[in-house]
Amino acid sequence: MSGVIATSCWAKTTADLVVTNGYVLTMDKDKTVYPHGTVVIKGNKIIAIGDKHLAEQYQAKQVMNVEGDIIMPGLINTHTHVSMTVFRSLADDVPDRLHRYIFPLEAKLVSRDMVRIGANLGNVEMVKGGVTTYADMYYFEDEVAKTVDKIGMRAVLGESVIKFPVADAKNADEGIDYAMKFINEYRDHPRITPAFAPHAPYTNTTETLQKVARLSEQENVPVLIHLAETVREQQVIAKRANGLSPVQYMQSIGALNSHVVAAHMISVDNKDIETAKQADIGIAHNMSANIKAAKGVSPALKMYDDGLRIGLGTDGPMSGNTLSVIDEFNQVAKVHKLVNHDRAAMPPLKVIDMATMGGARALHMEDKIGSLEEGKLADIIVVDTKAPNMVPMYNPYSALVYSANSANVKDSIVGGQIIMRNRVILTVDEDQIRQEAVDYTQVVKDAVIQSGEKVL
Amino acid sequence: MSGVIATSCWAKTTADLVVTNGYVLTMDKDKTVYPHGTVVIKGNKIIAIGDKHLAEQYQAKQVMNVEGDIIMPGLINTHTHVSMTVFRSLADDVPDRLHRYIFPLEAKLVSRDMVRIGANLGNVEMVKGGVTTYADMYYFEDEVAKTVDKIGMRAVLGESVIKFPVADAKNADEGIDYAMKFINEYRDHPRITPAFAPHAPYTNTTETLQKVARLSEQENVPVLIHLAETVREQQVIAKRANGLSPVQYMQSIGALNSHVVAAHMISVDNKDIETAKQADIGIAHNMSANIKAAKGVSPALKMYDDGLRIGLGTDGPMSGNTLSVIDEFNQVAKVHKLVNHDRAAMPPLKVIDMATMGGARALHMEDKIGSLEEGKLADIIVVDTKAPNMVPMYNPYSALVYSANSANVKDSIVGGQIIMRNRVILTVDEDQIRQEAVDYTQVVKDAVIQSGEKVL
Repeated sequence: MSGVIATSCWAKTTADLVVTNGYVLTMDKDKTVYPHGTVVIKGNKIIAIGDKHLAEQYQAKQVMNVEGDIIMPGLINTHTHVSMTVFRSLADDVPDRLHRYIFPLEAKLVSRDMVRIGANLGNVEMVKGGVTTYADMYYFEDEVAKTVDKIGMRAVLGESVIKFPVADAKNADEGIDYAMKFINEYRDHPRITPAFAPHAPYTNTTETLQKVARLSEQENVPVLIHLAETVREQQVIAKRANGLSPVQYMQSIGALNSHVVAAHMISVDNKDIETAKQADIGIAHNMSANIKAAKGVSPALKMYDDGLRIGLGTDGPMSGNTLSVIDEFNQVAKVHKLVNHDRAAMPPLKVIDMATMGGARALHMEDKIGSLEEGKLADIIVVDTKAPNMVPMYNPYSALVYSANSANVKDSIVGGQIIMRNRVILTVDEDQIRQEAVDYTQVVKDAVIQSGEKVL
Repeated sequence: MSGVIATSCWAKTTADLVVTNGYVLTMDKDKTVYPHGTVVIKGNKIIAIGDKHLAEQYQAKQVMNVEGDIIMPGLINTHTHVSMTVFRSLADDVPDRLHRYIFPLEAKLVSRDMVRIGANLGNVEMVKGGVTTYADMYYFEDEVAKTVDKIGMRAVLGESVIKFPVADAKNADEGIDYAMKFINEYRDHPRITPAFAPHAPYTNTTETLQKVARLSEQENVPVLIHLAETVREQQVIAKRANGLSPVQYMQSIGALNSHVVAAHMISVDNKDIETAKQADIGIAHNMSANIKAAKGVSPALKMYDDGLRIGLGTDGPMSGNTLSVIDEFNQVAKVHKLVNHDRAAMPPLKVIDMATMGGARALHMEDKIGSLEEGKLADIIVVDTKAPNMVPMYNPYSALVYSANSANVKDSIVGGQIIMRNRVILTVDEDQIRQEAVDYTQVVKDAVIQSGEKVL
């Protein structure tokens, strides 16, 4: 008898953190759920997952009893421009906005300060909305990297390459040089993956796109790019490449491969989808931003059903306008139902799968993140099931997709570190970050007024 | 000199509540804003509105300094079935769901208890989402009325009239009798407007619809009805009335007039819109619920632009699935842009106008609510401008429509009474209401299991 008692004590394995008493959605291959589940973490990884009794087998430094709330993989925002938070709510409905308004505004204002201030604010918003990993395309990405490092998130950060002069490069080659330096600096960071971000096919030459493809292969880093997004892009590329679509053009020049993460993919036909699948590219589906700009609806459901690597993205905060993937769920489900004339299309489980494993696959990180499984990195969020909009909860996927909003996210853990608890971010000073962003609005207002634009 | 000093004291007018130091969006005819504004309340009414200096002219029992947050009219939810919160997240994507799933479920479960429990939960959700007035169609509306009275909201409550047996009436005539009793009981309530709610043209006979029209005229009460919502409805009515559309049919039988508030109005052509305008009916536009069911998009933008009385509605929580009008904004703006192929279509100001004055006009209450103006009822909400998703705020309408969510609503005042302050509801016990709803889920699960339905 004493042997039995001794075993129950001695046999306890040590752990750093046990998250228990929650409705665990693992998002593993079988979509296993544990209605009263436990996740055990050691270092930056999940070492065990199971029902409530699992907790008893571990001696943990810290135990989080989430009292029935949802425990699920952190959300993955596969496409944004985080620093553009400083421009949010500016000139939202201006026609030809990118060329007429945004590019000129950026030419005036993009700087290390602007990038840092905007990234800090956007990171806070994302953590509070349940995003644990994001993919960013912008300038001065080394500044974004510092903010990501500090708040404790995970990110794929793509330094922009574009043919016209921008704040941190006079031309595409200088952009590539900047990116190479950034890649070398962050290559070994545990949470940051540096990347190239050629803006789009139509804003770069064939030569540049090929050079980026070569270097991405050589350095083994991702290539983030806007692809098949706009009519203007289609026209420019068709003229350049004998009528080819943007996807076919990228394929024809040898720039479509498993390093690529393509944002938008709106104007794609079945041949493009097959090409994208064969090339094994990742795809960011940005429903909310795409329909705000009246660009149309990507055939994201078909791409998902065909097994492509597709996740959800918010796009930048001048486009979306939030950085919250959870606030996107509702629209992703409903707009696909609308355009497919089928209320059963894009059910909640698919939406949650796209936001977690889909995002991981889109970033080619599915071995590390996207689901709660033994051996994976411990990127986990807890979602409140007691807020009035989340009651009752007959189906947790339905509740998340049709009812939840970003404010229902309570806790966030990245690589085993608790970065938010009960909606308080533990790693950075949220008030200071907000105040910096508020102070910066005057700089933006002055620049807009100087530009003579009537739309503030 | 002493006279001057004395005047500045003696001249102060008394008030009950001053809400000040906020970005006031009045939503009056000129869309007047006061970036540093004040609203003064006495009794249940607004007695003055203006800039920050106005506050100094009043001696108030209570002053709310909202520190730069948005002060705006309370949101109006023009169509819901509040008690159906108890069914939320159940069988969301079942085809032919109303007839195959919902009606049978209601036949088993609708009771005074169910109606009260669901209404309590839904009221809490609505207050926390900034709704101050809602229009409801359901059964046992006297139970709903008690919950509305207690929490302190304003509501138009329509007792259902339907041709088949339901929980509180064996047939349409009994439904009318129930409604008449309810109308007589609540006719003089300061915040509750009792109403008839014939379910739809296709679930009632011509005779019933005409009887309701006559009685609504006689009693001077609203008629809430689902209209031009589904293909089945079009078919049934076309067969009944020589190919007429539901709107034309209602007109032809004398049942379309300024008492009517029609929910949905999806399948309407230009002739229907003109008929609706001439009849002066109110319209509830339920974007989120309509697209979730893949029913299509109402030409709500055209109806708004043509000057019809049109507001926003969430529909019931089995349809929407939230009761939060603010979480609807985003979709209303973006889906209309999408279907109109125009990023400038349905700009934020129109969305906010629909959610406030539009809702008031839809309920024929525009003389009392919907904007912040002298003499109107003091139905006011305060929206946080410091949450990360609301920073920066170059344009408050953009921030509300594209960035805000229900959790950004901080305070709610109805008829001069503060019913929520800093997200704490002051009039009811939120925890107890949630627990009652959670406890009731077992009753629902048992009924679904008994029914043999595979979809929980």
